[in-house]
Amino acid sequence: MKAHTITMLGTGLIGDFYTMTLHGQRGRDRVRVVYSRSEERGKAFGERWGIPESTTDMEAAIRHPETDVVVVALPNHLHEQAVKAVAAAGKAVLVTKPLGRNAAEAKRMLDAVEAAGVFGGYLEDLCYTPKTLKALKSVEDGALGDVTWVRSRETHPGPHSAWFWDGRLTGGGAIIDLGCHCIEIIRNFVGKGNRPVSVMCTTDTLVHPIDDEDNAIALIKFESGAIGQFEVSWTFRGGMDLRDEVAGTHGTIWLNHFLRTGYEMFTAGGSGGYVAEKAETAAGWLFPVGDEVSELGYVDMFTDMFDAIDHGRAPRETLYDGYVVNSVMDACYRSARSGAWEPVDLEWRGGTTPRIGAKPEMLGDDVVIKREILPDGRVKLILKEAATGDYVDRVIAG
Amino acid sequence: MKAHTITMLGTGLIGDFYTMTLHGQRGRDRVRVVYSRSEERGKAFGERWGIPESTTDMEAAIRHPETDVVVVALPNHLHEQAVKAVAAAGKAVLVTKPLGRNAAEAKRMLDAVEAAGVFGGYLEDLCYTPKTLKALKSVEDGALGDVTWVRSRETHPGPHSAWFWDGRLTGGGAIIDLGCHCIEIIRNFVGKGNRPVSVMCTTDTLVHPIDDEDNAIALIKFESGAIGQFEVSWTFRGGMDLRDEVAGTHGTIWLNHFLRTGYEMFTAGGSGGYVAEKAETAAGWLFPVGDEVSELGYVDMFTDMFDAIDHGRAPRETLYDGYVVNSVMDACYRSARSGAWEPVDLEWRGGTTPRIGAKPEMLGDDVVIKREILPDGRVKLILKEAATGDYVDRVIAG
Amino acid sequence: MKAHTITMLGTGLIGDFYTMTLHGQRGRDRVRVVYSRSEERGKAFGERWGIPESTTDMEAAIRHPETDVVVVALPNHLHEQAVKAVAAAGKAVLVTKPLGRNAAEAKRMLDAVEAAGVFGGYLEDLCYTPKTLKALKSVEDGALGDVTWVRSRETHPGPHSAWFWDGRLTGGGAIIDLGCHCIEIIRNFVGKGNRPVSVMCTTDTLVHPIDDEDNAIALIKFESGAIGQFEVSWTFRGGMDLRDEVAGTHGTIWLNHFLRTGYEMFTAGGSGGYVAEKAETAAGWLFPVGDEVSELGYVDMFTDMFDAIDHGRAPRETLYDGYVVNSVMDACYRSARSGAWEPVDLEWRGGTTPRIGAKPEMLGDDVVIKREILPDGRVKLILKEAATGDYVDRVIAG
Amino acid sequence: MKAHTITMLGTGLIGDFYTMTLHGQRGRDRVRVVYSRSEERGKAFGERWGIPESTTDMEAAIRHPETDVVVVALPNHLHEQAVKAVAAAGKAVLVTKPLGRNAAEAKRMLDAVEAAGVFGGYLEDLCYTPKTLKALKSVEDGALGDVTWVRSRETHPGPHSAWFWDGRLTGGGAIIDLGCHCIEIIRNFVGKGNRPVSVMCTTDTLVHPIDDEDNAIALIKFESGAIGQFEVSWTFRGGMDLRDEVAGTHGTIWLNHFLRTGYEMFTAGGSGGYVAEKAETAAGWLFPVGDEVSELGYVDMFTDMFDAIDHGRAPRETLYDGYVVNSVMDACYRSARSGAWEPVDLEWRGGTTPRIGAKPEMLGDDVVIKREILPDGRVKLILKEAATGDYVDRVIAG
Repeated sequence: MKAHTITMLGTGLIGDFYTMTLHGQRGRDRVRVVYSRSEERGKAFGERWGIPESTTDMEAAIRHPETDVVVVALPNHLHEQAVKAVAAAGKAVLVTKPLGRNAAEAKRMLDAVEAAGVFGGYLEDLCYTPKTLKALKSVEDGALGDVTWVRSRETHPGPHSAWFWDGRLTGGGAIIDLGCHCIEIIRNFVGKGNRPVSVMCTTDTLVHPIDDEDNAIALIKFESGAIGQFEVSWTFRGGMDLRDEVAGTHGTIWLNHFLRTGYEMFTAGGSGGYVAEKAETAAGWLFPVGDEVSELGYVDMFTDMFDAIDHGRAPRETLYDGYVVNSVMDACYRSARSGAWEPVDLEWRGGTTPRIGAKPEMLGDDVVIKREILPDGRVKLILKEAATGDYVDRVIAG
Repeated sequence: MKAHTITMLGTGLIGDFYTMTLHGQRGRDRVRVVYSRSEERGKAFGERWGIPESTTDMEAAIRHPETDVVVVALPNHLHEQAVKAVAAAGKAVLVTKPLGRNAAEAKRMLDAVEAAGVFGGYLEDLCYTPKTLKALKSVEDGALGDVTWVRSRETHPGPHSAWFWDGRLTGGGAIIDLGCHCIEIIRNFVGKGNRPVSVMCTTDTLVHPIDDEDNAIALIKFESGAIGQFEVSWTFRGGMDLRDEVAGTHGTIWLNHFLRTGYEMFTAGGSGGYVAEKAETAAGWLFPVGDEVSELGYVDMFTDMFDAIDHGRAPRETLYDGYVVNSVMDACYRSARSGAWEPVDLEWRGGTTPRIGAKPEMLGDDVVIKREILPDGRVKLILKEAATGDYVDRVIAG
Repeated sequence: MKAHTITMLGTGLIGDFYTMTLHGQRGRDRVRVVYSRSEERGKAFGERWGIPESTTDMEAAIRHPETDVVVVALPNHLHEQAVKAVAAAGKAVLVTKPLGRNAAEAKRMLDAVEAAGVFGGYLEDLCYTPKTLKALKSVEDGALGDVTWVRSRETHPGPHSAWFWDGRLTGGGAIIDLGCHCIEIIRNFVGKGNRPVSVMCTTDTLVHPIDDEDNAIALIKFESGAIGQFEVSWTFRGGMDLRDEVAGTHGTIWLNHFLRTGYEMFTAGGSGGYVAEKAETAAGWLFPVGDEVSELGYVDMFTDMFDAIDHGRAPRETLYDGYVVNSVMDACYRSARSGAWEPVDLEWRGGTTPRIGAKPEMLGDDVVIKREILPDGRVKLILKEAATGDYVDRVIAG
Repeated sequence: MKAHTITMLGTGLIGDFYTMTLHGQRGRDRVRVVYSRSEERGKAFGERWGIPESTTDMEAAIRHPETDVVVVALPNHLHEQAVKAVAAAGKAVLVTKPLGRNAAEAKRMLDAVEAAGVFGGYLEDLCYTPKTLKALKSVEDGALGDVTWVRSRETHPGPHSAWFWDGRLTGGGAIIDLGCHCIEIIRNFVGKGNRPVSVMCTTDTLVHPIDDEDNAIALIKFESGAIGQFEVSWTFRGGMDLRDEVAGTHGTIWLNHFLRTGYEMFTAGGSGGYVAEKAETAAGWLFPVGDEVSELGYVDMFTDMFDAIDHGRAPRETLYDGYVVNSVMDACYRSARSGAWEPVDLEWRGGTTPRIGAKPEMLGDDVVIKREILPDGRVKLILKEAATGDYVDRVIAG
């Protein structure tokens, strides 16, 4: 039973979530050293989580002699430098989302890690929520037939840290922050071997006085004919809305990860406690989540990553996936500017997926459009007659 | 207290819903004569609803000496002929959705009715659901601030009558059948004076072997910057999904009209009864609706129509609204073919609506991006510094 | 098509709901005169609803020459006097819930109405909600098998009018106000021919400084073995909680009439509008109801009452039902004092209902306790062996 | 960082859940040896979970030289023997619910463990669900004020193993199986220092041909005046219904652990996969749970147990708690037989809890019953006048 010793780069909210997960619930893996650009924040983080060492020297943190895995939990503009340094140090590297500010940056990270031959993992937690994992299993088992449409929605009133709002550092606005989740959730449901072909995206800056988009909607066409749809916003009021909807030829899945999970509370106020990430109020009707690090996927994500390292296999979410996501986001920004469907430019490794669609049922020469069972047990067929092209009802014995 | 006597044209599912509503719950208005193309269906309909007379002569039905209102509940391709005949007869005309197969047809009907000076009403029930009416009141009262985004979704496994599947008779597929509802719901929420400027739509025929779309998604840009989004499908599995979501700068509304309305039933089977419109199963977990004609808006719709006639005012939903909806649908079909944003061509009567957007809050020269209350009661501001363009945190006293 | 002209006695909240319903949605029945103990309130009520006449003379209102139906919407302690006067006047009388302050009072009203031979109806709106009516139809059709257990819950933060809090005027506290609804809902689901045999009730005054109960829970045993359970409170926080749950041998029904009906709204505040009856807040997450008079049953209730008068049949809810409810409440109060199961004393007219319970399935001499389908398609039986009395698993072919 | 090596006694469904949890998600603790009465089941269990050794010798399993903790996951009638043997072996013992078949048995186990001075833990998973833990924190922080009422419901169609149905082996029916969960959930919410004083319980055998109850409802009065209410059944149709509702003077909490947790799926069938514990169907609308071992509390439960051992503190759920639960269940069975409120006989260690209830607000000599804000901003008070005992409205400036 192997255990891993970790270098954590970054001390923001995501670093807290990651370390809470890694150290949580009888886990055997431990953070050994944390890097922060600020000595004060590094020390506070170390004390908060019982980490023996903190440093402001990123290179020293990466090359710490006792760690074998480095988690990159830094702002987006620092990913490339960090990933290249970890690759050079020959350690496994796990990178928070999004991988890069754009596909070119993501590709350089992917290339560096592949050239070094080290393990790379893409920390896309929302593809690992327990609900998502179980739903993906149902889809793979055929419960939905062919997937035709996936909606992924992630909206909240805006991020907590200043750097998130600066597109120069992040690569964009709400798409870069939230759309990266949605795109990869959609890819999981339509199948990772299903090539994203083209993208239509519209963005706007409706509420916040910033230079980048605080609202965006995009449609993604996949090779199979499936459509992905994402809605991201930094202007949603009511908390954090994380929902995914999947439609297939034989079924439907609706996942609600945050505001409606079977936990409802009304309080006249006064408790003063933490409700949930991005909650807007502390009184009235509130909708907390039971165990956020579990329900948002952090637990299953790190389990997959470390088990993948231990067994020499690829994780569910690879740096290549991160690169695909950046490529789709690049196409989104191009489309928002051009107002047109834009192709997704990327080095595709995923093979091909056939077009959705069954052979129609026939009744003689006529096409059966629909079957309905009547109250008396007989069956009504709606037929398209070959001879006339007309649509007609025909009732037959049940 | 006036009462109306009605000519009903058509004996399909919608004619049943309309007559059930008109005759229901102590109502004072009554259907006097029903027209059907089939003598047999007309007679059965008359017996079902206690209507004194049925006929296969449309003109006679329209000109029946005792009726003052004519309801057009016919397949789409028969609307124009019927509406013109009613206008010529000088009676009030209420037309089921969609008004026409396309905007040109709709415009001719509108013109005929306006030229004749008779009352015209557009029977768009889903804009009259009690939930929608109350939600619209909240929006008008400012509960949501400026509306930024509206999603309207209507999907089910496909219509029950053969003619619905024949685009030659209807004008299209799922957009014509279902999108017309969504577009008008969206218009109500963003404001009827908010001009629909352009449309991006993607359609596909994924499941049914038909010539028109069985799936469509569209984005509608309004003059204010608000975005409408509709999703329509004849391939949804699980029943009929009718949901609307409205986001504004200060709030959010989620309406669920069908599958999750506070009525949940599990049955091991055996009852054999009607569950709800478009329900797929009669055992397992079922989600009936209490009073469909009330919750789907039919009751409030006819109340508005007749009260409007009685008081000489316009109804909430006019034939002009029906024409606008057809114009948006025309743009959807053009966009689906061109793959580009298409302008909505129409004779606009709705005035202008200003762009969404507040003046940003300032702290000296710096723009305040966001305020957050810290656990200790102090306030954290995220600022965009005028001097540098950088985004920074600043904590101030609460 | 008959129409009725109505005398309304009382101008409180319930009088408003009743008149809104009677005059609403193209109805043909009209309130002609309203009685109030206060001239001012009577006039205001008349103006609010367009009622031609108001008076402070109850007898005159009842004997108004143009009215044929009298609605008793007065505080509980005035019901007996009013009902007797209406009976003496030979008019139809519809009485709000609860019928009396106790069973003796209710019985005297029932006797007076029966002696006079006039129509009597019990205005128990919550037995007429569209959800309840449809659920009752499903139960009658066998969708749930035998009903074994019904929970009815009605709780809110307390009534709006002073007299409600005075047990001398009402007959009690939360049981009299809310329990009367629950008891009759339960009776509808277990069957009106199913005699309520005995009652166990516990009450307390936990929050409000009053002399009567602000909380109560009761269990009601019916002849069939079914158990009814009600929970009533004037101390609930969060709005008005109206939920019914029905369990049967073959199914389950859950009804939510108020706080979760598919209408969800978050507002940062500022609209100032009416949200819903008993709503506690005007900001944060709110859960309005679409059309309260429809969803709370008022519409279907008056339709049933007037149609019953027109067709010379009994309404769904009779004054005898009101008397049964009072008898059960009397037993509740006795049980709360004695701490013991108390019999329900009443003149029973409902016949008998057999004990729930099927003949057990046998496998040879052994009793089959349960069947489960295994993943491989075989069936696992849990048997009680006749010879030993032991419980054993046995797997058989599917 | 300590790790524990475990002896698992028992290979039933609960043994699977326990081992899945212990070995899951990067855990450092491991099961070393498993005991089963059947060599075949023991071997299969060992292979399923990668456990090095299995045995049919319970004493040998307990005294295995490498294990320091023994988990008792055996049928109820084997608990006492096993617990005494572990105590004699001087190891930590964790016992599944219920602790004993009755309080006397539970007390003997408690005494044996306390006499031996070893660590004892009560494996009551449903008190450890993440939702419950967070809700308890909110209650402790005062979000609900004083807790007045707790409802805990656990119902499903009946257990999977034959021995569960044999009251001679278990101590009873649905109460012993499910009520033990509910009682301890209720105790957590009303406060563990809040003595359960008396119990009223009604039981019946409605569906299954067994000797013990398949349905039960009970009320528990606590010293503070709070009421606990549990509903347990082996006859529920629709899956497994696990819900808790908590009401307090200032708020409300509703928890849904199973059928409505934000995961909804419709399938036309064909996937054949596992849906969830006690699911009844594999098609139609299904409601799976994301991660059952997390959401049902197993993960947090074992974390608490092992961390308690490591830090020399008591776990949240002790064997004394198990004994209290058995004492309450004993009172339930006595009450079901006597038809009366029965005192809870137990050796109480929990101290005292004061009566719920605030001092009433006064306006001069009058008691303020309720405050309501009127639409115009003024405040309406409902007062009980000291002089008359009458209840009156008084409107004051806001």
